[in-house]
Amino acid sequence: MDYQRIFAQAIERLHAEGRYRVFIDILRNKGSFPNARCFAGHNGPKPITVWCSNDYLAMGQHPHVIAAMEEALHDVGAGSGGTRNIGGNTHYHIELEAELADLHGKEAALIFTSGYISNEATLSTVAKLLPGCIIFSDELNHASMIAGIRNAGCEKKVFRHNDLAHLEELLAAAPADAPKMIAFESVYSMDGDVAPIAEICDLADKYNALTYLDEVHAVGMYGPRGGGISDREDLAHRLTIIEGTLGKAFGVMGGYIAADRNIVDVVRSYAPGFIFTTSLSPVLVAGALASVRYLKASSAEREGQQAAAKMLKALMADAGLPVMPSTTHIVPLMVGDPVKAKRISDILLAEYGVYVQPINYPTVPRGTERLRFTPGPAHSEAMMRELCTALVEIWDRLELRIAA
Amino acid sequence: MDYQRIFAQAIERLHAEGRYRVFIDILRNKGSFPNARCFAGHNGPKPITVWCSNDYLAMGQHPHVIAAMEEALHDVGAGSGGTRNIGGNTHYHIELEAELADLHGKEAALIFTSGYISNEATLSTVAKLLPGCIIFSDELNHASMIAGIRNAGCEKKVFRHNDLAHLEELLAAAPADAPKMIAFESVYSMDGDVAPIAEICDLADKYNALTYLDEVHAVGMYGPRGGGISDREDLAHRLTIIEGTLGKAFGVMGGYIAADRNIVDVVRSYAPGFIFTTSLSPVLVAGALASVRYLKASSAEREGQQAAAKMLKALMADAGLPVMPSTTHIVPLMVGDPVKAKRISDILLAEYGVYVQPINYPTVPRGTERLRFTPGPAHSEAMMRELCTALVEIWDRLELRIAA
Repeated sequence: MDYQRIFAQAIERLHAEGRYRVFIDILRNKGSFPNARCFAGHNGPKPITVWCSNDYLAMGQHPHVIAAMEEALHDVGAGSGGTRNIGGNTHYHIELEAELADLHGKEAALIFTSGYISNEATLSTVAKLLPGCIIFSDELNHASMIAGIRNAGCEKKVFRHNDLAHLEELLAAAPADAPKMIAFESVYSMDGDVAPIAEICDLADKYNALTYLDEVHAVGMYGPRGGGISDREDLAHRLTIIEGTLGKAFGVMGGYIAADRNIVDVVRSYAPGFIFTTSLSPVLVAGALASVRYLKASSAEREGQQAAAKMLKALMADAGLPVMPSTTHIVPLMVGDPVKAKRISDILLAEYGVYVQPINYPTVPRGTERLRFTPGPAHSEAMMRELCTALVEIWDRLELRIAA
Repeated sequence: MDYQRIFAQAIERLHAEGRYRVFIDILRNKGSFPNARCFAGHNGPKPITVWCSNDYLAMGQHPHVIAAMEEALHDVGAGSGGTRNIGGNTHYHIELEAELADLHGKEAALIFTSGYISNEATLSTVAKLLPGCIIFSDELNHASMIAGIRNAGCEKKVFRHNDLAHLEELLAAAPADAPKMIAFESVYSMDGDVAPIAEICDLADKYNALTYLDEVHAVGMYGPRGGGISDREDLAHRLTIIEGTLGKAFGVMGGYIAADRNIVDVVRSYAPGFIFTTSLSPVLVAGALASVRYLKASSAEREGQQAAAKMLKALMADAGLPVMPSTTHIVPLMVGDPVKAKRISDILLAEYGVYVQPINYPTVPRGTERLRFTPGPAHSEAMMRELCTALVEIWDRLELRIAA
């Protein structure tokens, strides 16, 4: 058994497919984000503009958030020092969970160390408590939901993306008395399209299924209080479990669920991924608390983001660039090849100071490799025009197709 | 299908077994830890002494750590804004990984959002890349290792705790050409005993097995530079993968592995739990970096912790309290019943201002419920004497057995 050879071959396969990942070494400039410094391949840091951050509303540099984190750092220190059960439950955690429950109009909420683990732990734990449970899963669900469903060890039925007829077909074919859960996302992060939440809830009612909605690319950004697409469409009360993140629009780190008291209590009590882990640092919790509270009251960031996304999509379409038909703040540009996507990204960074990561398999299906832009309220019109000029130059140079 | 009834019954089972968990609501007092404030069941915060923190060396309040976090907070902001691959790779991450690789004398290291996910992601990913792999797992391994092994979907052989003869029996019975990995911990956190690392490495050599060592309750605390038990015993070079945490002795949050370059690269490239998650906040990474560097050079905290643990064990033994035979900094007091363990803990908190969490199933096997004390360099002799006096009074009051 030559272990080293096997590991080396696994790496070689990635190089051969052109999808070996090189992490870009950056530091953001607090106070002037999306400006940042890039270290890789240069002598000392070089200024860049970040176009692919999930700190969608630049809350990671908001004075309220920074001040709250600084205060917590000086009041209680760096880490929590334990699991939630053993010494790591701070008053900040209690307050944030109350705030998140309120945000989604639910009885309770539960914080996890990441959105990934909140999906994994919740889906696997809830399904395990329901013998014979069948999970109906959108085919484009995030890797963390897929992990949770697999780890539940239950039956899984995958429905075609946002396809209500297919979902109903699968629901109707399942035993009427089997426990059922429909797991889906509101905003799909790589395409920028939105699920038909109301219609899925109708099907859940008709077939007595629970619903699990991942709103990580929507919380903070949609709805009058930033409760996500389910807030915007006044549907939160119809969903069994809403999952969100503190690490994207809220600008910090961590994940959570909101649901009724019993469901939150069973996840809290039975999920290994929640129980056996040091709780989120109180510094992060304090920052997230400030961010959630701020975005409940302020819509300026949301409006700025929507205006920026609309403008960038229009500028790209006008320039004949292959912008994908997103209905949200996510602006994907189709390339369709991992090597070309990386090449465009490399040129943008080296020659134009533009940082946008190429998105390749397994994050998106093979053959749909793309660049994914996330303009926010801090990206100016001038930045967008410069970006489009650069993209058109590169598209010409690489002889990629520009629409007439 | 009455979902609510099923969830309510799952909660009721916990109450019936006396192991429904109530999280104590606290805030630590930075600068005077183990002093803290407790909110639960009182009007306003009440002062307490924390005896069950995994911030073992009080690095969570160390001025170097706090200063580094404050600087990062003001330089780059709250969160990283993305996965390691998409915008969330900061210069701090690169530096910390280099520092951790050096700490363990390995070529490379990789940071995760938690120790839980580092175990889960690494074990499952490495085993999946080795078709036919068999994992040999100590029966007391942590839940996160068990999750990783289960999610690998490979064959698992559980050996009796620290039992070399049993481990060898299982290794010898496996096909000689099958890939093998021995997964174990250095310090077992609930008993405080230590694995025979050298002898396990001997068996790994004999049977051509990889080794995976969880050092989360040892890093920072053992060895001349805080590299853990494998550092103390000069064995790091014999281990394939060393896993550690930034959330216990280092006082912050997060987990990591250190190994040779190819292994770190395959985990970095193939593990969903690493790829699909927002990276650790640069604020935390900066704090961890300061903490690791500080503890590489300073042994005063380690010595203070060892002295405190030795003293507390002696005081408890002198008082006839059922202190378990730990050879490390962990001081467990056996109770053997979940209801009594909780009762003792409740009295300590309400009447003596002492916070020590009862440890119950599933964290320890049923019938071995205990109190687990983690004295550190900041716990004074006076605090320890007060604690023992309180414990003896409660033991008398509850008519528990005191050794003659």
